[in-house]
Amino acid sequence: MSSPSLATQRIGIVGLGLMGGSLALALRGRCRSIVAIEPQPSVRQEALRAGIVTEATDEPAAGVAEVDLLVFATPVRTTVDLLGRLPALRPDGCLVTDLGSTKAVVVAAMDALPSTFAAIGGHPMCGKETSGLASADGDLYRDRTCVFCRSLRTTPAAEASVLALVAAVGARPVFLPAAEHDALVAAVSHLPYAAAAALMRLVTDEAAWEISASGFRDVSRLAGSDTRMILDILMTNRPAILVALRDYQAELAALTVLLEGGDEPQLSEWVAASRVRHAAYRRHLSARAPGEEGERVTDQG
Amino acid sequence: MSSPSLATQRIGIVGLGLMGGSLALALRGRCRSIVAIEPQPSVRQEALRAGIVTEATDEPAAGVAEVDLLVFATPVRTTVDLLGRLPALRPDGCLVTDLGSTKAVVVAAMDALPSTFAAIGGHPMCGKETSGLASADGDLYRDRTCVFCRSLRTTPAAEASVLALVAAVGARPVFLPAAEHDALVAAVSHLPYAAAAALMRLVTDEAAWEISASGFRDVSRLAGSDTRMILDILMTNRPAILVALRDYQAELAALTVLLEGGDEPQLSEWVAASRVRHAAYRRHLSARAPGEEGERVTDQG
Repeated sequence: MSSPSLATQRIGIVGLGLMGGSLALALRGRCRSIVAIEPQPSVRQEALRAGIVTEATDEPAAGVAEVDLLVFATPVRTTVDLLGRLPALRPDGCLVTDLGSTKAVVVAAMDALPSTFAAIGGHPMCGKETSGLASADGDLYRDRTCVFCRSLRTTPAAEASVLALVAAVGARPVFLPAAEHDALVAAVSHLPYAAAAALMRLVTDEAAWEISASGFRDVSRLAGSDTRMILDILMTNRPAILVALRDYQAELAALTVLLEGGDEPQLSEWVAASRVRHAAYRRHLSARAPGEEGERVTDQG
Repeated sequence: MSSPSLATQRIGIVGLGLMGGSLALALRGRCRSIVAIEPQPSVRQEALRAGIVTEATDEPAAGVAEVDLLVFATPVRTTVDLLGRLPALRPDGCLVTDLGSTKAVVVAAMDALPSTFAAIGGHPMCGKETSGLASADGDLYRDRTCVFCRSLRTTPAAEASVLALVAAVGARPVFLPAAEHDALVAAVSHLPYAAAAALMRLVTDEAAWEISASGFRDVSRLAGSDTRMILDILMTNRPAILVALRDYQAELAALTVLLEGGDEPQLSEWVAASRVRHAAYRRHLSARAPGEEGERVTDQG
């Protein structure tokens, strides 16, 4: 399969929510055409009106018919379902990637595609606590990490194509096996969601909100994440998330014991060790992408 | 005791860290003089060099000698210690307030002051995950809530004086009983710290940091809080923090059970309920201070 340059490609985006809409905005003018496959008429109309995509349809068969590269920007289980239907919709095959939050189930579905397809899983490490096309932002992917997970259908052409895509949107590619990706994001993304959501479920007192400050706002932010996206994450990465959740509760239980006992030297050590690790993490961020540490916070709006 | 206007007052600030330094910057030019009581020579020198304060001393007796209003910007237990020594240092009394994170122990120490003093506890609901004078910011208090907790030594003059102070720095005063303040901040501030610090203690893998995004950054941010400040919070608000910690672990345990069972309808309800509350909280923020929701994030630097 050839790897035409991005400028000559027709790109299909399945799902014009936050991620798909932001991708379309970032690619505008950088490819031949963008066709959206989106079930909601109002979203299709808005995307066409605003010139975010070239064409829009609710018919998957029509949408995928002539694309060079098809990008799934749907919740993980929707992507898996559609990948199962794809050979019937597009018998001659095409390049396929996705933007989903867990990768093992998506890569397994890609493995099952016929060899007319070339496919690689993708996961841009960015988002907002608001969802939908109205929240889309052409800079969402800029300077962000995008993880790619190879499938049995990954070809050099597929890799070249998604590398051209991340270069166009300003992201930074990282390659990881799907299982490793899923274990890491359980700790660094899915557990933080659970920590935020549990806090938000607990602190429902308006008197508490009234005196709350940026600490509460930031720790609770991920509780606003899209429900369907989160549910698919939870249901497709259960074992890894359970490990992270149990370890997290053990950390909190250890703190509780120290606090019950009023054990000041041990409490001091607990607090100091956490602070040391936070400092190391911030140094890591600075080294990874100078300037990113003080990055614009697109996700506070 | 009279309540002179801020412009005629000599203000003493005990401790030139993030909070005290930011207060001095915010008050610069708005009062007659600012004297810092600060043990570290390098911090005193820097504050004088940068014109942040008028005078600086490491001698509490000299520092408090002629101030109209004394503001403790020290960790809570340091404030309590110094309040106990204050009658000997300043026999004729003065106005006293503080910026500490828990209020019951501070207000109890204020209750014990002789009646030559007028005192009211204060807690500005703001901060950063960095500490020290180098992080000070004259806008730190702007548009932020400042809780005041009355003591047995609170007089109308003391109230007028701290209201003039918060007006000068652009903050929004809220009056609460100390016990109520401590219960609310356990949920809205101390628990979020614990959630952040436990996460940071757990996720120490550089491979995880490498693909981490703004979600992890925001949820973990409070782990960078000043160790001594946090230790004093934990040791002076133990019962309320223990309640919050146990409730939080119960929320996480409930999620764990649902995830173990793969109970999708219940998981969906858990996720959706959290999102609904987050939306209500964001509406509350918008109503509280229009524009604050999308506030500048001073604490990402």
